[in-house]
Amino acid sequence: MTRSDTLFTNARLMDGTLCDLAVTGGRIVAITPAGMPSDSVETVDIGGALLVPGFVEGHIHLDTSFYGDRWIPHRPCTKGFDVKERVAFQAENMASAAPMDRRARDQLDLCIAQGSLQMRSHVMVDGSVGLASLETILAVREDYRDLIDIQLVAFPQSGILKSPGTPDLLDAALALGADLVGGLDPASFDRDVKGHLDVVFGLAQKHGVDIDIHLHEAGTLGAFTIEEICARTVALGMQGHVAISHAYGIGDLAPDAARRLAARIAQAGIAIMTNAPGNHAFPPVALLRDEGVVVFGGSDNIRDSWWPYGDGDMLRRAEIIGYRSGFYTDAELSAAFDVVTAAGARALRLEDYGIAVGARADFVTLPTDHVPLAVVSVPKGRRVFKGGRLVAAEGRVLR
Amino acid sequence: MTRSDTLFTNARLMDGTLCDLAVTGGRIVAITPAGMPSDSVETVDIGGALLVPGFVEGHIHLDTSFYGDRWIPHRPCTKGFDVKERVAFQAENMASAAPMDRRARDQLDLCIAQGSLQMRSHVMVDGSVGLASLETILAVREDYRDLIDIQLVAFPQSGILKSPGTPDLLDAALALGADLVGGLDPASFDRDVKGHLDVVFGLAQKHGVDIDIHLHEAGTLGAFTIEEICARTVALGMQGHVAISHAYGIGDLAPDAARRLAARIAQAGIAIMTNAPGNHAFPPVALLRDEGVVVFGGSDNIRDSWWPYGDGDMLRRAEIIGYRSGFYTDAELSAAFDVVTAAGARALRLEDYGIAVGARADFVTLPTDHVPLAVVSVPKGRRVFKGGRLVAAEGRVLR
Repeated sequence: MTRSDTLFTNARLMDGTLCDLAVTGGRIVAITPAGMPSDSVETVDIGGALLVPGFVEGHIHLDTSFYGDRWIPHRPCTKGFDVKERVAFQAENMASAAPMDRRARDQLDLCIAQGSLQMRSHVMVDGSVGLASLETILAVREDYRDLIDIQLVAFPQSGILKSPGTPDLLDAALALGADLVGGLDPASFDRDVKGHLDVVFGLAQKHGVDIDIHLHEAGTLGAFTIEEICARTVALGMQGHVAISHAYGIGDLAPDAARRLAARIAQAGIAIMTNAPGNHAFPPVALLRDEGVVVFGGSDNIRDSWWPYGDGDMLRRAEIIGYRSGFYTDAELSAAFDVVTAAGARALRLEDYGIAVGARADFVTLPTDHVPLAVVSVPKGRRVFKGGRLVAAEGRVLR
Repeated sequence: MTRSDTLFTNARLMDGTLCDLAVTGGRIVAITPAGMPSDSVETVDIGGALLVPGFVEGHIHLDTSFYGDRWIPHRPCTKGFDVKERVAFQAENMASAAPMDRRARDQLDLCIAQGSLQMRSHVMVDGSVGLASLETILAVREDYRDLIDIQLVAFPQSGILKSPGTPDLLDAALALGADLVGGLDPASFDRDVKGHLDVVFGLAQKHGVDIDIHLHEAGTLGAFTIEEICARTVALGMQGHVAISHAYGIGDLAPDAARRLAARIAQAGIAIMTNAPGNHAFPPVALLRDEGVVVFGGSDNIRDSWWPYGDGDMLRRAEIIGYRSGFYTDAELSAAFDVVTAAGARALRLEDYGIAVGARADFVTLPTDHVPLAVVSVPKGRRVFKGGRLVAAEGRVLR
């Protein structure tokens, strides 16, 4: 056998077996039953802990969190929830917040320390901030490249058609380094589903990038917009390259209507992101998965102008998704775990993800026996390895 | 000034002030601005941590949890949820579980370590287990009397009218030492609201005890049963002595109907317990509080035959209640905290509760700045004091 850089011994895999993992050049090169002879340079004893792939944080906002900053009390909208008013509050809050660079780093440390090693972050692009937020987050991403892989979505937080100059800004954002183009409530915010999607899909085609659209629209309006996104995705051959974040509307539909829509989403190869919000409808995770839809998870906002919740722990998110979905059996709890790991990797089109020979050695150890127990107990005391290198332990990023 | 046993210095109270607390004979005898001269025998530096009263675990099942035992995968009902089938599964699981005594102790340690110092536990009383579970839990309670105060509810898990001999068993349970009489779904389980409540209220009157009824009934059926409980409570002058646990039906009502029912509940002085379940309706906490209803919280089941969730942390429960209720502002987050502290104390009719001169020195320190932040961040690293004595730290009960 070839000499590997590091042998991770006594790791409990998700199937319950105790194994040793040989890692060379940041990749898993062999997985053998625990205790086989080895010729590694270094040995790391996993001590029987559960070893799982790094969590996939599929939806976060690195630019707008106040995590690590002072406490900013939530300010309610004047007359019920209003996205435009919230964006205005956010602008006020941001003006007095700590530098974005510092806040983004605090948030990244929080996520990495708990085991997220892959991330998709939306970054606001609009007439007020222009490309400044994206420039900041691109620089932070570069600094964190050895700790976490980050995809950035150019996110039109103020709409596309309602916010003059935004199509050009999104175009410039993609030229500058954003990896995906975003969208926001084509009907309820921009009042023009066709016009909004023309810009989003046009830019995706021009730059050869994927799409991830925020869609908060409820009930049949949300379903209509989803149908339109499905139709364009199929027409352009973009199956596997489009995600819809939130998609609350699916959760408002009767089960038969939801199932028909889910079949259409699956056929279009569109992934659905949910954070399992607390007090309103959200996509039916089991039904969508049954129909073949890739459902992935994200923290969404962490302690920002939209809400005070969020802890950056995708294992906790799996628990929340399970709790909100009525997942009780081992198979259901494992599905919630899949949402924040393998399904997330599929949605983000990550290559070489997982605990397998050839995959990147990005993994997390959990002091517990198996995945269902991990989901309901959310153990801390984790160790986080990126490319086989220990990057976080006991809740802290190591530097 | 009199010489106190212990001075707790540099404690941040919930109003933000830094104070010293003098404790003598297990009670708070003085609260003074931090740094005033003192003549205490012992000093404990709280180090600026937030000091809050011990959490009130208002609804738990000490007899049926598998926490600390082996993992028992959840078994779904054959044809949709069925209480009778679940009770049968529970009986099967209990037959092969670790001794109840050990499981109850594990669960108590879990709760105390996180700061619960007052508890109400339901204990199953029916034809199958008779009084055996109650006898076991009474003995455990005696062993834990210096760590936590526990009220026990004689809980007819198999119904009262449908389970021959149960009225006599409940009577015997109250004679044996149960503190309250319970009930279970008078309409949907026992099919006789009047007959069920005749037994429950009759036993309460006979023994001079309070009532805490499990009510899972949905929508207008649940509302009907609640109205009947209200009417009897008022007729018997038992205002302040009756609680309804779960009361899911209130959450199914339209806001105007819910508000009318809430006013009636408030007028009857009935407390409502919720654990903020994940995937179905539950009582509207803000609406009930607005109408003057005491809403208290509980873990309910922790990893048992009913579901795999639960961690015994009432601060986490406050977060879940807030998350599920759409509580975002500081006032709302503080309300969620009140549910697991002061409101719980009112529901359990605890005397001398709180951080006040004359109150029992039962408190928890949280390494955080204020209550709203505590609710969304759920900090660990707590110290738990019962009667001024350190009983748990860093997640472990000290012995």
